[in-house]
Amino acid sequence: MTVSSTTPDLELCERAARVFELLGKRWSGLLIDLLLQRPARFSELARAVPGLSERVLGERLRELEEAGLVERRVDPGPPITVTYLLTPLGAEIEPAMGALRDWASKLIAQRAARPGE
Amino acid sequence: MTVSSTTPDLELCERAARVFELLGKRWSGLLIDLLLQRPARFSELARAVPGLSERVLGERLRELEEAGLVERRVDPGPPITVTYLLTPLGAEIEPAMGALRDWASKLIAQRAARPGE
Repeated sequence: MTVSSTTPDLELCERAARVFELLGKRWSGLLIDLLLQRPARFSELARAVPGLSERVLGERLRELEEAGLVERRVDPGPPITVTYLLTPLGAEIEPAMGALRDWASKLIAQRAARPGE
Repeated sequence: MTVSSTTPDLELCERAARVFELLGKRWSGLLIDLLLQRPARFSELARAVPGLSERVLGERLRELEEAGLVERRVDPGPPITVTYLLTPLGAEIEPAMGALRDWASKLIAQRAARPGE
């Protein structure tokens, strides 16, 4: 297809923009993917993602909380425990996450087929 | 659900990690979404995404090219023209992108229901 002066303008999709406002931040998608497994404590999330600092983990969880995707639940105990879990809205990403994982299988297969990289 | 010492460890999903290695960079997901519309020139992509500088756009396109998702096609002309398009592997993200857009509709509806934000 050729791009000519009669080609219609590209249109930024409002929905895609909202999705990637969230998922286009490093670690956010991965944290949602982990919380789809089960609710988790801060320290578990920190341990599960190599290279993610506690400072950035705290920021990301706060952003996901503000977006209404993650809930921070405090159990007064004793001992007091804090658990992070997906809200129903957060959990509704599951079908999309499944489709992304399917796509990733192809990405990984292609990379394996080019061992020079 | 309570997180106890008998709860299994969270496991980082290799496929999710690969997906967000790519999409967890600002603008990458949005650029793929735009190229799902049609092949486009550099200047069109720059224009379509407010806030995206030409320097960062160039970086992102190079990364997507290295990952095998985008092809840079040069038509020797005259005039010489350069077009960016998704490879078949890149285009195979479409079902996942569709599922993400569906999820985004819920995100946007929820935000609209909380006008205080």
